[in-house]
Amino acid sequence: MASVGRIPVVGVEPTLEQGRWPAKAVVGEEVPITATIFREGHDKEGANVLVLRPDGKRDYLPMPLDNFGNSLYSASYVPRVEGLHRFRVEAWSDPYATWVHAASAKVAASVDVELMLDEGVLVLGRALNELRLPRKAVAVLGEAIAALQDEAASPAARLAPAVGDEVHAVLRRYPLRDWVSRSPEYPLMVQRERALASAWYEFFPRSEGAYQDDDGTWISGTLATASERLKGIAAMGFDVAYLTPIHPIGTTFRKGRNNTLTTEPGDPGSPYAIGAPEGGHDAVHPELGTMDDFVAFVDEARTQGLEVALDLALQCSPDHPWVTEHPEWFTTRLDGTIAYAENPPKKYQDIYPLNFDNDPEGIYIAIRDMLQVWIDAGVTLFRVDNPHTKPLVFWERLLADVAQRHPEVIFLSEAFTRPAMMHTLAKIGFHQSYTYFTWRPTVRELAEYLTEVSGPASYYMRPNFWPTTHDILTPDMQAGGAPLFAARAVIAATGSPSYGIYTGYEFVENVPRPGVEEQIDNEKYEYRPRDWSAADEHGLVSLLTTLNRARSEHIALRRLRGLTVHQTTDEQILCFSKRVPGEFTMSGEDDIVIVVVSLDPRFAREGLVTLDMDALELDEDAVLTVKDYISGSTYTWEREFFVRLDPGRMAHVAAVTRIAE
Amino acid sequence: MASVGRIPVVGVEPTLEQGRWPAKAVVGEEVPITATIFREGHDKEGANVLVLRPDGKRDYLPMPLDNFGNSLYSASYVPRVEGLHRFRVEAWSDPYATWVHAASAKVAASVDVELMLDEGVLVLGRALNELRLPRKAVAVLGEAIAALQDEAASPAARLAPAVGDEVHAVLRRYPLRDWVSRSPEYPLMVQRERALASAWYEFFPRSEGAYQDDDGTWISGTLATASERLKGIAAMGFDVAYLTPIHPIGTTFRKGRNNTLTTEPGDPGSPYAIGAPEGGHDAVHPELGTMDDFVAFVDEARTQGLEVALDLALQCSPDHPWVTEHPEWFTTRLDGTIAYAENPPKKYQDIYPLNFDNDPEGIYIAIRDMLQVWIDAGVTLFRVDNPHTKPLVFWERLLADVAQRHPEVIFLSEAFTRPAMMHTLAKIGFHQSYTYFTWRPTVRELAEYLTEVSGPASYYMRPNFWPTTHDILTPDMQAGGAPLFAARAVIAATGSPSYGIYTGYEFVENVPRPGVEEQIDNEKYEYRPRDWSAADEHGLVSLLTTLNRARSEHIALRRLRGLTVHQTTDEQILCFSKRVPGEFTMSGEDDIVIVVVSLDPRFAREGLVTLDMDALELDEDAVLTVKDYISGSTYTWEREFFVRLDPGRMAHVAAVTRIAE
Repeated sequence: MASVGRIPVVGVEPTLEQGRWPAKAVVGEEVPITATIFREGHDKEGANVLVLRPDGKRDYLPMPLDNFGNSLYSASYVPRVEGLHRFRVEAWSDPYATWVHAASAKVAASVDVELMLDEGVLVLGRALNELRLPRKAVAVLGEAIAALQDEAASPAARLAPAVGDEVHAVLRRYPLRDWVSRSPEYPLMVQRERALASAWYEFFPRSEGAYQDDDGTWISGTLATASERLKGIAAMGFDVAYLTPIHPIGTTFRKGRNNTLTTEPGDPGSPYAIGAPEGGHDAVHPELGTMDDFVAFVDEARTQGLEVALDLALQCSPDHPWVTEHPEWFTTRLDGTIAYAENPPKKYQDIYPLNFDNDPEGIYIAIRDMLQVWIDAGVTLFRVDNPHTKPLVFWERLLADVAQRHPEVIFLSEAFTRPAMMHTLAKIGFHQSYTYFTWRPTVRELAEYLTEVSGPASYYMRPNFWPTTHDILTPDMQAGGAPLFAARAVIAATGSPSYGIYTGYEFVENVPRPGVEEQIDNEKYEYRPRDWSAADEHGLVSLLTTLNRARSEHIALRRLRGLTVHQTTDEQILCFSKRVPGEFTMSGEDDIVIVVVSLDPRFAREGLVTLDMDALELDEDAVLTVKDYISGSTYTWEREFFVRLDPGRMAHVAAVTRIAE
Repeated sequence: MASVGRIPVVGVEPTLEQGRWPAKAVVGEEVPITATIFREGHDKEGANVLVLRPDGKRDYLPMPLDNFGNSLYSASYVPRVEGLHRFRVEAWSDPYATWVHAASAKVAASVDVELMLDEGVLVLGRALNELRLPRKAVAVLGEAIAALQDEAASPAARLAPAVGDEVHAVLRRYPLRDWVSRSPEYPLMVQRERALASAWYEFFPRSEGAYQDDDGTWISGTLATASERLKGIAAMGFDVAYLTPIHPIGTTFRKGRNNTLTTEPGDPGSPYAIGAPEGGHDAVHPELGTMDDFVAFVDEARTQGLEVALDLALQCSPDHPWVTEHPEWFTTRLDGTIAYAENPPKKYQDIYPLNFDNDPEGIYIAIRDMLQVWIDAGVTLFRVDNPHTKPLVFWERLLADVAQRHPEVIFLSEAFTRPAMMHTLAKIGFHQSYTYFTWRPTVRELAEYLTEVSGPASYYMRPNFWPTTHDILTPDMQAGGAPLFAARAVIAATGSPSYGIYTGYEFVENVPRPGVEEQIDNEKYEYRPRDWSAADEHGLVSLLTTLNRARSEHIALRRLRGLTVHQTTDEQILCFSKRVPGEFTMSGEDDIVIVVVSLDPRFAREGLVTLDMDALELDEDAVLTVKDYISGSTYTWEREFFVRLDPGRMAHVAAVTRIAE
């Protein structure tokens, strides 16, 4: 059992099960580090954080008292380099602060005056002798000692410099530390900023440029035709072009249009039924092109300022080369057949799941090598399909391996399942996570969820908010038309530092297949070329462009913490703000963005918003000048302000440009 | 970094910083052990707890799923022996449960019927081959296999036994466990029951039998005269007789009556100013008697069924032998004087604090040896005065040392300070803690506090509730008279498994020294003999006797967890219940005690109580017959019931004797 320590340090955060897994951060992100520190009796304690960086350097952070009642000390660390950092909290007896407290009280009360002044000479003398101080600090302490010894002056005057701001500043930076007690070292994994903040745009490359020839036969789009879409995606300001699987598609039990069990000639099949004689997960579907075409696609994306994300769906069609080469990687049933996916009594005969327990090493190496093919081709992000149906030990090993060799590669977990699994996948290494955002339709639920994801979970799980996906069209989105598409795009893009849009969102594609919460004529089973020249008919192209511009201009929108939900008088109006304090912005000014959204797609809504001025660290009577990205207008808002939103104008995304008292 | 494990186990409780300190329990106490367990895909997981006992035995506990949404598994452990236990949670793949789920669904849907039945033969055959089963279990599985293979029967009939209760019961107790994943081992310190449940009675032995002779000179009571009081204390049903310090008292700067700086002849001084030429912490004050007298006192206490607690106040009067023998154990100031206690500008010149940093080893050994003197004399509990003014490393070492050699010895921490210190003292080894109960005067505050102390903190901090002490007389207790003394005794004795009464409570001694929250003519500074023949004038002797009888008859009152606060319609009426489920009581019946208390000492209060039937695990329309210890009456209560309390009858302490639906 670890001892409590001479100056106890307990409850250090952020930690996951005392360092079982690292907390996460990105370069430039403020990481609050807190600990409960206290000591016996009346003597004073002090604290600091020591960060051991992967480049061998050490960062020393003074850690002041934050809350006396809770004995909470805190410091903020802003990592500057990527890689695994370790940090520890150090607490110590502070002889200078102890003396300041006693001397200030006693000299004022004319008790033990000479003794107190003599003790001051002693403690500042220790600082001079024991600490490596810069020349200026030496001078400051020397003058304070001289004043303490100046018997011609009054006691108060003799004391003043030694307890004053200048000496305090020196000893805050270079403290005298007795009985230093150290917490364990805790890991903090620092990644590039895109691991936290990113705007994804998902599309099926085969739909881009697909067409029917004269006899009605569909001709697939290609990577080449799909790359023509990249300019439009980049123009809207997205960061990531995410492609659904691009591999050969099986024909055995291929699904037809609208997920039917029978196909018609020309049905392209689901790209999630991966594998055919032409190849498996490391191959490009011949109708899309070649590996060279893929590399060219990635190059074009880079030219447009986009990174490319691939879908990683670890399952095989019955025609996948692995099925014949490695039948031992699947589950063979007692009757000798290979088990297809099923959730009894439902059957998914076009899919063979891998059985990771049969040959964990063989499967692991095959998948690792397959990933390397795509990383070598320039892929820097993977959207992982259903990671919660594969063993977590597999992911933990794979993600650590890839992080070691390619720390820039980002994995997004698509685990729509119970919270324990979703959160643990984040803890063991996924950089980003799909979340429950898609199923939080009401103001109350969104308020709670925004608060939850930006709270303590923010140290390990980075949400990626999607209003829809190719798999998901929720009842509210089926019914709410363009206004709700606008509203939920606003919340996704501003409530979370990462969000994603599935192509066709611009056209308000909201018709479901009856009885299912996904689109009719789902692109998973057919080609869906779109006429991009008409894409802004609902104003959504403009809106997405505006949102991405606001995100690029405001660091607060690229951070997860610093979110506050504010009260409104209308049950359909949601208000929240994001804030980054001035010490962590380029300008040195607080960055505050206030988002107000209506969730009523049919009627105008109006009411009062009451800002939580404490949370914003604003005076109660501060007057804010805000610039609304949506309307382009400038408003003056106070603690309580009136808003009116309607289906034609569903939101304000208001950046604070001026604060007057 | 520890791997997540093939079947992940996270968030095991109760643990303190992942085993930095042990959780606490007493023999016979129910300890819920919980963990978050889940796995990939659709296959089933199972879990168990393994407890490694200090006697070398192992206890295996099945750990069923408690909450699907939270992936929470739980088991209850009831320790049978004292000492340091270790426990771990084991999670595994459950091939039997996986097969039951698939076979039940598919046979019902007539899919893969033969395959499913064959797989059942395989999985039950594995159980027969791989597990050490008792003969009866072998027969149960054998019959199920025979049924699966009975081709003459219908598929449903063939399946039924293999998925039925009997086979389930066998495999719950003796599971087939694949891919067993183990949590770390966590410590659980098990102590004797009194460490959790105890009723303390505090008194100043010198007051018992003290008298004034004819010229008005006070003659001190002695250990011999004080021992005459033990019978009365035992008759009220207390467990512990706690004596304020019994050591020689210094004369230098001795405090006079009512804490004055000057003494008058005959003033006995504060027993907390320890040490005089006659001896220090290991000596008996000559006016109280000798060490032999003390041993006789302990013997008499034992005869009466009482244990003896001593006050451990680690400070010295200027006349303490250590001051001359070991001046290095104190702080010497620059002017050569020894530092007295002070909280600038306040001075406490009659007290020299030890400086534990000057000679930690020497001081430690002296105190350890001094404690041994009292343990050898029969002391089994120590009430530690202001432990938060001494280093925690000192306590951690001392308490571990004593626990090793004398695990029966109990330490009560008197740390009226910030929560972090109070809680950490409990974590590092104190068995019991004074709490904020004394400063929680209102129904709302008490409801919150009762909920807090019986929640997660209950795994390390055991509260000891005191309505008053020799140091504390809160404003409400100054004003509330006998009714409030009654009410707060009820809450202390029933709200917490440990509580304490400071002598004189029977007489409603509630007059404060002006401007201070303690009694006038405080017994710390003078003799206060009392006429015990008149002690029940306010009915408080009877009440305390009744409360202690209720405690002895109801295990629920001797446990900390299982407390629920219930709603009442009157803001001055508090209702809470304590409950121990039947599986942990001797009778096998649930033990439920419902406490209803008025906090209004002046007026009658009436209103409705609404019981939280879910928390009590009762049907909504259950009818309870209760026996009220206070009135002696029997009532019939339902979910909602009416109460009327008044200054003459401030509480019900109602044990449920019968539950009808």
